[in-house]
Amino acid sequence: MTMSRTRLLVFSLTMMPAVVSTVSADEGMWLLNQLPREKLEEKYGFSPSAAWVEHVQRSSVRFGRSGSASFVSPNGLVMTNHHVASDLIADLSDGQRDYIRDGFYAATLEKELKCPHVELAVLMKIEEVTDRVNASVSADMSPAAAQDARKAAMAKVEQEAKSRTGLEPEVVTLYQGARYDLYLYKKYTDVRLVMAPEQGIAFFGGDLDNFEYPRFDLDVAFVRAYENGRPAKTTDYLKWSPAGAKPNELVFISGHPGRTQRLNTVEHLCFLRDVHLPLILDCYNQREVALHQFRADSPENARIGNEDLLYVQNGRKAYGGILRGLLDEALLGRKIAAQQSLRRFIQADEERQAELGDAHGRLAEALKALPSFYSEYFLLENRRVQLCGLFDIAKKIVRGVEETSRPDGERYSEFRDANLPSFEAALFSEAPIYPELERFRLQDGLVRLGRALGGGHPIVRAALGGQDVGARANDLIAGTKLADIAYRRRLYEGGKAAVAESDDAMIALARALEPLARRLRDQYEEEFESVETDAYAKIARAQFEMYGESVYPDATFTLRLSLGTVLGYEEPDRSVPAMTTIRGLYERAEAKGHQPPFQLPTSWVRARDRLDLDVPMNFICTNDIIGGNSGSPIFNRGTEIVGIVFDGNIHGLVWDFQFDQQRARAVGVSSGAILEALGKVYRAEPLARELQSGAID
Amino acid sequence: MTMSRTRLLVFSLTMMPAVVSTVSADEGMWLLNQLPREKLEEKYGFSPSAAWVEHVQRSSVRFGRSGSASFVSPNGLVMTNHHVASDLIADLSDGQRDYIRDGFYAATLEKELKCPHVELAVLMKIEEVTDRVNASVSADMSPAAAQDARKAAMAKVEQEAKSRTGLEPEVVTLYQGARYDLYLYKKYTDVRLVMAPEQGIAFFGGDLDNFEYPRFDLDVAFVRAYENGRPAKTTDYLKWSPAGAKPNELVFISGHPGRTQRLNTVEHLCFLRDVHLPLILDCYNQREVALHQFRADSPENARIGNEDLLYVQNGRKAYGGILRGLLDEALLGRKIAAQQSLRRFIQADEERQAELGDAHGRLAEALKALPSFYSEYFLLENRRVQLCGLFDIAKKIVRGVEETSRPDGERYSEFRDANLPSFEAALFSEAPIYPELERFRLQDGLVRLGRALGGGHPIVRAALGGQDVGARANDLIAGTKLADIAYRRRLYEGGKAAVAESDDAMIALARALEPLARRLRDQYEEEFESVETDAYAKIARAQFEMYGESVYPDATFTLRLSLGTVLGYEEPDRSVPAMTTIRGLYERAEAKGHQPPFQLPTSWVRARDRLDLDVPMNFICTNDIIGGNSGSPIFNRGTEIVGIVFDGNIHGLVWDFQFDQQRARAVGVSSGAILEALGKVYRAEPLARELQSGAID
Repeated sequence: MTMSRTRLLVFSLTMMPAVVSTVSADEGMWLLNQLPREKLEEKYGFSPSAAWVEHVQRSSVRFGRSGSASFVSPNGLVMTNHHVASDLIADLSDGQRDYIRDGFYAATLEKELKCPHVELAVLMKIEEVTDRVNASVSADMSPAAAQDARKAAMAKVEQEAKSRTGLEPEVVTLYQGARYDLYLYKKYTDVRLVMAPEQGIAFFGGDLDNFEYPRFDLDVAFVRAYENGRPAKTTDYLKWSPAGAKPNELVFISGHPGRTQRLNTVEHLCFLRDVHLPLILDCYNQREVALHQFRADSPENARIGNEDLLYVQNGRKAYGGILRGLLDEALLGRKIAAQQSLRRFIQADEERQAELGDAHGRLAEALKALPSFYSEYFLLENRRVQLCGLFDIAKKIVRGVEETSRPDGERYSEFRDANLPSFEAALFSEAPIYPELERFRLQDGLVRLGRALGGGHPIVRAALGGQDVGARANDLIAGTKLADIAYRRRLYEGGKAAVAESDDAMIALARALEPLARRLRDQYEEEFESVETDAYAKIARAQFEMYGESVYPDATFTLRLSLGTVLGYEEPDRSVPAMTTIRGLYERAEAKGHQPPFQLPTSWVRARDRLDLDVPMNFICTNDIIGGNSGSPIFNRGTEIVGIVFDGNIHGLVWDFQFDQQRARAVGVSSGAILEALGKVYRAEPLARELQSGAID
Repeated sequence: MTMSRTRLLVFSLTMMPAVVSTVSADEGMWLLNQLPREKLEEKYGFSPSAAWVEHVQRSSVRFGRSGSASFVSPNGLVMTNHHVASDLIADLSDGQRDYIRDGFYAATLEKELKCPHVELAVLMKIEEVTDRVNASVSADMSPAAAQDARKAAMAKVEQEAKSRTGLEPEVVTLYQGARYDLYLYKKYTDVRLVMAPEQGIAFFGGDLDNFEYPRFDLDVAFVRAYENGRPAKTTDYLKWSPAGAKPNELVFISGHPGRTQRLNTVEHLCFLRDVHLPLILDCYNQREVALHQFRADSPENARIGNEDLLYVQNGRKAYGGILRGLLDEALLGRKIAAQQSLRRFIQADEERQAELGDAHGRLAEALKALPSFYSEYFLLENRRVQLCGLFDIAKKIVRGVEETSRPDGERYSEFRDANLPSFEAALFSEAPIYPELERFRLQDGLVRLGRALGGGHPIVRAALGGQDVGARANDLIAGTKLADIAYRRRLYEGGKAAVAESDDAMIALARALEPLARRLRDQYEEEFESVETDAYAKIARAQFEMYGESVYPDATFTLRLSLGTVLGYEEPDRSVPAMTTIRGLYERAEAKGHQPPFQLPTSWVRARDRLDLDVPMNFICTNDIIGGNSGSPIFNRGTEIVGIVFDGNIHGLVWDFQFDQQRARAVGVSSGAILEALGKVYRAEPLARELQSGAID
C-alpha cells in the first residue's frame, strides 16, 4: 500500500482557510462563480461568457485527494501530471513490470490498466447555502458549540442534496465562513491508465531540479474515466491548441489549489516557523535518510520505496523553502505592517471593534497554548506521519466503527456520510502492500515517536509495548492480517464488537493508542481549531470591510481559476526566459554528464534525431497556484490546452502565505512537447490523434 | 577545509568518564599500568611481562584527535584505518587527482605525500599525580571552585613536566577523579601518506554495511612519521604475524577508546535519550539530506562533499543505534536495577552516606535544569555542529585571543598551554577550503539554528543579521579572508585589538555570537559539568567500595588495552561465523548486482584470479572497544599483528553505556587480506616487504 501524495506543496487535512489583504497584479485563486471580471476586462480585454465558465468548470477534474486534471477528449480521456498519477502507476507495477521506471502506453482500449482506488470528481453545480448553515448558530453559543452546530447543519444540507440530485455533495467553507457553498460533484471511480512516460523524463533532474527553473520535465500522464465498462462520455473537454503558448500571452489555469494561508496572523506564521515546520522537517529528514538505506539494499527495495522517497523529498524541499521564507525578517516585516494596519482599522470604529473583538489577540493566546500538546497531536493525527500503511488501516477501522455508530453531525469530518464513500474506498483499496516496506516504515515511525516525545512518554511506551524497535516492528507486521482486504471488511462491518474482540496485533496497537489520539484531536479542535475558525472568520470580515469585494477566498482544494501571463523574470545574475526547448533538455543532460538524476531514458536518447528540438519543453507564467494545482490544465482564452501545470519555482514556495509576482512563477509542460513526445518518442500516434481530433481510432 | 572525523562511535570534547559496575567476561578497557593480570592468567594462562607492556605501549599511536594506529616497521611506518586517514587523503586530492576514489601508493620515499596538519602521539611515560592535583582542593570548596582549583593544579603539573622532560604532557582524569595520571607523549607532525586503497573497497558496502557483520572491507591505510626530514626511527613497532588470527585465539587491542558512559545514571541516560540524541540526530539528518543534494549537483561537488557525508552518515547510524538501545525498556531496566542496588549500598552505611551524599539525586536535579539551555549550548559549542569551517576558524581566533590573554589555569581546557600547540596546528592547518562547500555548510547551519531555536531567538537573529539564509551565506563567504592562512595568523597574533578592529565578515559574526556562546558554556560548566564531575566521582567511589579493584576506568581517549577472543555468535535466524573470506567479498558484490555501494574497484575486478580467495578478509572478536579505537592494532600474545580494528557490529553500539558479549563484537581487517591486497591488487610489494622484514627496499 502506498500513501497518497503530490509534488508541489502538499496540503494537510486540517485546512486553515484565509483571505488575502490586498490583491495585486495576477494574484488570485478565483471562484468560478465570482471571477474578477473587471480586472480581466481592464488588463486583458477579455470577458468570459457564462458558457465559457461552465465549459471550463465541467472540463476540470479533481484527481484523488490532492491533485488536479482535465478532460482532454470526449471519451473520458484525462490528462494529469505523472507525479499526480505516480501512486497508481507504481501500484500497477511489480517486480517484473516497473512502469515507473519504464513507462507505459496502451495502444488500444483493451490494454488500458484498471487502477486500484482512485476517484475523479467533476464539479457540476454550485449552490450558495450560507443562510442555511448560519441559521443553525445563535449569538449566545460558544465558538465550540457554534462550530458543532455548523457541522451538523452542513451534514444535513449534504444529505438532502445527495437524495435530491444524485450527485456527490460537499459544503465548502469560503472566506473563513463568510460564505458557504454547496458543491455538487460527478465522480468516476473506474479509472484506467492510458499512458505514462518514464520517471526519468517525467522528473528529469529529480530532487535537484524540483522547484527550480529553467526546467525540462515531461511531467504528464493520461488516464481514462470509464462508466459502465465503457469510456465515459465527456462532452465538456478542453481541445488541444495547435500553436501552444506564446510569451506574454494571457493564460488560465483551472484546478484545485489545496491550501493557502495568506490571511495568517504574524503569531500564526511564527508558530508555523518555530513549531510546525521544524517538527515536520524533522520527520521528513529522518525518513528520507532511512529511505536511502532501505532503497540501496536491493533493486526491488529501490522500486517499492521510490514513491515514498519522491513524496518525502518533495515535502522536505517545499517545507524547507517555506521555513527559509519565514526566517526572512524582511518578509515577516511586511506581514507585521499589514497586521498592524488591519488592527488599527478594527480599533478605529467602536461598533466594528465591539462586533469583532480582539480576534488577533484571542488567536495569539490559543497559539501560545498549542505547543504544549502539538507534537503529540501532530504525531498521532497528521496523516503524513502515520506509523505505517497497515497501522493507518488499523486506525481507520478502529476509529471508523466508533464514528459511524454516532449521528452524522457528531462525527469527525472525514466520517460524515458525505465523505464515507471516499473513506471506505481508501480503506478497501487494492493497492499493493509490501511487508518489507511496511516493516521499514514502522521502525522509522517508532523511532520518530521516541525521538519526538521521549522514551518515557505513554504514547511511546504503548507503541513499543516494552520491546525494542526492531522486535516490535517484526511482531506487529507478522501479527496482522490487515493486508487481506476481506479481513478488513469483516472487521469494519463487524463494528465495535468485532474490533474490540480482534486479536490482530495492529488492531490491538490502534486500540491502545486510540483514546490518546482522540483526546489530542478533541483538545486540538476544541482549544485551538474552534478559536482559529472564529478568529479568522472575524479577521476575514474586517478585511472585507477594509478592502471591499475584490478579494478571493484562500484555497480549499476546490475548483479555482487563476489568470496570468507567460513571462520570464530577472535573477540578480541573469535573465530567466519564459520558455525552455527540447534542445535545452539534451544540453542539460550533456552538461551533467548523463548521470542520474540527469540521465535520459533510452527512448529519448534514440528519438533525438526525429524530434524538433526547437519545440518549447517547459514554460512559466504568473498565474497564482499552490500545491493541489499539480495537473491543472493551462489554456488560452479559446479554452485550448497550451500546457499543464506541474510545479512552482523556488520563489513561489512563499505563495503559501504571500503572493509575489516579481520572480515567483508557475511551471508547466508545453502542449507542443507533449504531442512531439507522444508521436516521436513513444510511437503513441493514436493517443496524439485523440488529443487533436477527439476521436478514438 | 574538512572536519576531523572517525567512523565507529565518534566522541565529543565534553567527555563524561565513568566506571563500570561489574566486570564480566572480556569486558574492560584497561589502563596499561593496571592490567587485569589475574583474569589474563586464569582465563587465558598468559602473564605479560613489563617489557611486553612497554613494547605495546610505545608501538601504539594516537592518530589526530579521534583515531588510533600503530607502528608497523622500525622506519616510522604507521598503520591506521582508511576512514581515520580519509581526511588527509581527501585534503591531498583535488579535481584532477582523487585519491579517495582512486587510491594512492608511493612506491618510494620520495613519492610519499606530506599531509596537511595531523598529529601522531605516542605515550612514552605515565606518572601518577593524584596527590598533587588533590592538594589544591580543600573540603570547604563548592564543586565549581574545586573544579577550578583542580584545573589550575593540572595546568601547573603539565607546565612543570614539559620543561622537565621535553615531552608533551597531559594530566588525565581517571575513575572520575579518583585518580589523576600524567601522560607524557612524543608527538610527530611531519606525516606522509604512503598507501591508501580506493574508498570503494575500504568502505565496501558503504553506509548500508556500516556497523554490520559479516563484512568485507579493506579499511586500512599507511602513513609514515618523519623527523628532521627522514623517516622516524621507531624501535618499538609491532611485527606482522605470518599466520594471522585463528578462531578462538586470544587477541589484544591497544588503542584510544574515546568515551564510554558506562557509569551513567538512569536519569542521565534518559537525558541522552530524550534530549541530546534527538537533537544531534535532527542536525545530522538535515545535513545528510542536504549533502545528497549538494553532491548530486556535479562530480566535483560529489568529491568535496564526500568526507562530510561519510562523517554524518556514520554519526547518524551510531547515534541512531544508541537511541534505539536506550528506547529498549529491557536494557534500561537492567540499569535501573543496578542503580537501585548501588543506592541501597550507599544508604546502608551511615558514614558512607554522609561522605557521598545523594550524588544520584544531585545529578538528577542538575539534569532536570539542563534542557532549558541545552539546545543553545549544543548548537553554539558542540564542535560537530559548527556553522561551517570558516566560521569555526573565526570562532577559534575570537576565542583564542581572549583565552590566551588569561592565566593558564583560568582558560577553557583546549586553550591551556599544554593544549595550545594542537589548537594552533588546527587553526593554521593547510587543509583545503572549498568556498562552494563552505557556502553550503553555512546555509545548512543557519537553517539548523532557525529550526532548533526559532526565528525570533537572539542567536538566530544575530546569525542571520536580518537577511535571508541564502543572501546571508553568500555575503559571509564573500566577505571573509579567513581562507588565507597568513591572514588568520596576523589576526591571531595581533591579539584582542586586531580582532576587535577586524572588518572581516566572519570574524564580525563570531564576535557577535561570542558573548552568547561564552555565557552558555560557562552556564553549562558551572551548573551542570561541575555537579556532574563531583557526582560521578562519588558514584565511582561507591562502585569501588562495592565491587573492589577489578574495574577499569571509563574511556578517556587515552591508551587502553582490551583482550578477547576471535569468536562468532548466534542471531535468532542464523549463526554468524568469526571470519569472512576474500571469496565472500566477490560473492557479495555479485549478489548485490555490482551496484554502489557494492561495486568493486576495477583493481579488485582485475586481480580476482591472482588472489587466494580463501584468505580471511574480516573477522570479529569479543574485545571491548568504542569510537576512537578505529585503527587500533589487533595482535596476538607474541605482539604480532593479526588485524586492525575498523568497526563494531550493530549490537556493539550500546557498548557506549553497557558492555554485552552475547552478540556485540569488534570488527577487524585480517592481516592476511592486507598482505594479499598489497601484493596482488596494488603491486605494492615494497610496502608488503617492509611489513614482513622491517626493511625499506
